[in-house]
Amino acid sequence: MTVAPSDLLGRARAGDKRATARLLSVVENDEPGAADALRTLYPLTGHAEIVGITGPPGGGKSTLVNRLTGAYRATTDRVAVVAVDPSSPFSGGAILGDRIRMRERFLDEGLFIRSMASRGHSGGLARATSRIVNVLDALGYGVVLVETVGVGQEEVEVVRVADTVCLVTVPGLGDDIQAIKAGVLEIADVLVVNKADRPGADETARDLAQMLTLGAPRTAWKAPIIRTVAATGEGTDQLIAAIAKHRAWAAESGERDARRRAAARAEVEDLLRDSLVRRLRDRLGQERVERAIARVADRAIDPYAAVDELLRE
Amino acid sequence: MTVAPSDLLGRARAGDKRATARLLSVVENDEPGAADALRTLYPLTGHAEIVGITGPPGGGKSTLVNRLTGAYRATTDRVAVVAVDPSSPFSGGAILGDRIRMRERFLDEGLFIRSMASRGHSGGLARATSRIVNVLDALGYGVVLVETVGVGQEEVEVVRVADTVCLVTVPGLGDDIQAIKAGVLEIADVLVVNKADRPGADETARDLAQMLTLGAPRTAWKAPIIRTVAATGEGTDQLIAAIAKHRAWAAESGERDARRRAAARAEVEDLLRDSLVRRLRDRLGQERVERAIARVADRAIDPYAAVDELLRE
Repeated sequence: MTVAPSDLLGRARAGDKRATARLLSVVENDEPGAADALRTLYPLTGHAEIVGITGPPGGGKSTLVNRLTGAYRATTDRVAVVAVDPSSPFSGGAILGDRIRMRERFLDEGLFIRSMASRGHSGGLARATSRIVNVLDALGYGVVLVETVGVGQEEVEVVRVADTVCLVTVPGLGDDIQAIKAGVLEIADVLVVNKADRPGADETARDLAQMLTLGAPRTAWKAPIIRTVAATGEGTDQLIAAIAKHRAWAAESGERDARRRAAARAEVEDLLRDSLVRRLRDRLGQERVERAIARVADRAIDPYAAVDELLRE
Repeated sequence: MTVAPSDLLGRARAGDKRATARLLSVVENDEPGAADALRTLYPLTGHAEIVGITGPPGGGKSTLVNRLTGAYRATTDRVAVVAVDPSSPFSGGAILGDRIRMRERFLDEGLFIRSMASRGHSGGLARATSRIVNVLDALGYGVVLVETVGVGQEEVEVVRVADTVCLVTVPGLGDDIQAIKAGVLEIADVLVVNKADRPGADETARDLAQMLTLGAPRTAWKAPIIRTVAATGEGTDQLIAAIAKHRAWAAESGERDARRRAAARAEVEDLLRDSLVRRLRDRLGQERVERAIARVADRAIDPYAAVDELLRE
């Protein structure tokens, strides 16, 4: 497509889904026009409710997101889902699973679904996700659900973009409860025991409550434990109420501002790093930098000495 | 401890394990003296055989690493194991599991075990792992095994430090075979079907072989599929032979140099970014940078404008 990003912007703002998808690709892949689009859109951000959903595989997150989407759509004109899979190299809405599970909502004009994967984000997946969410926020999506699979550090970083983070587990994880390590528990604002009609739901809730008492409380917020059965829709309303309650607390307590400040810091520092390195490369020439790298690879000099040399010039 | 890193260096070189552990902590946490230690050690690196072991949880990787360690120790004076868990916030050799499984080798003076976790690496876990491996290499460890759990992008980055990457799977993953996504398959030099005495080993091997044919070959190396039973030690010799064969091919074909060049590039670029940002902060003052960040958080300016401003000053 050869449409200028400024045209895309207008069409995306008007609600054109294809233009929105294309605009997101421009931003995601840092194509020409990405910076201009982000600059234009940035002042319009800060209005969406951003909800993160994470947890180990097999927890029924996708079904739960489907339920949440339906519920939010009843009260919100535009809802977006960003499904992030750090272990998948495929991107751009092409994940078959998402299409299938969302089939029933596929024709809903007020719903936009985007899949993201790990490939091709020079600044990291979390940074790309944050940009995608910013664009959707600026385009008027009132609720953006960010769904990611897994409990590793990368998933934690991805989901940090949210105002409220839900950690979804299921009964019967057994010893695998240890898979939910402190890293992800620490950032969870709402704990969800999904498939709560299965045996062991009480135990799982108890284990989670106990794990919560282990860590030092980061804030005054005490993460509630919500039971859901995504397959039937049971508990969806309670979950939405818990998310809304956290959102209100975060706005009141200054937690939301603190998180937005942290997000702004990360964004500015990333851009600063990129710009400074680009400027240095432009000044010294790519060849000079490559020569230093080659000498480090050959162990002729150490990396610190190489950097000192480059900066001295 | 108040020992100067230079003292630590001498003692670690002499084989003192406590000094080695302390030196690794200095480097891992970027404590004072870290840069000096790395500068001194860097010219001594490049001799160790670095073997990466990754794969989904439950594949018996730890037992396999234990077997490999025993076999390598029969021919190598010093062997190190670096166990990296991206989902764990605990670090510094404190992971109980490692201690238990390695108990039988705990008194082996020629074996050094280090656990690493996700917390506190400003430059990312992969970068910290690469530094730890460099230090062990410089200290004379002939073989360094880097073990990591999971198949996400972060694990891929961690294990990229290795000259040879082994991907460990087990029979009966069933549909979970899709968990082994192209990202990790692409960097695997040797494929291992562990617990190969279980039913379904043939199927798993066939699935892997088929997945290998799907991607475009990155190099002329065709990853062999090795069957092991880590619990009994079966297949360990074949695995070691396959690793050695890959190592010889990589040295011959230029692949090893290409990987080392890529590692050097990553290290130089990371340091360059850090240094440039530090210099800018020193010049403008932390307060000036914070002010820009606050304005971005308040949506008063966009991140690009903030960076332009900072760079103009």
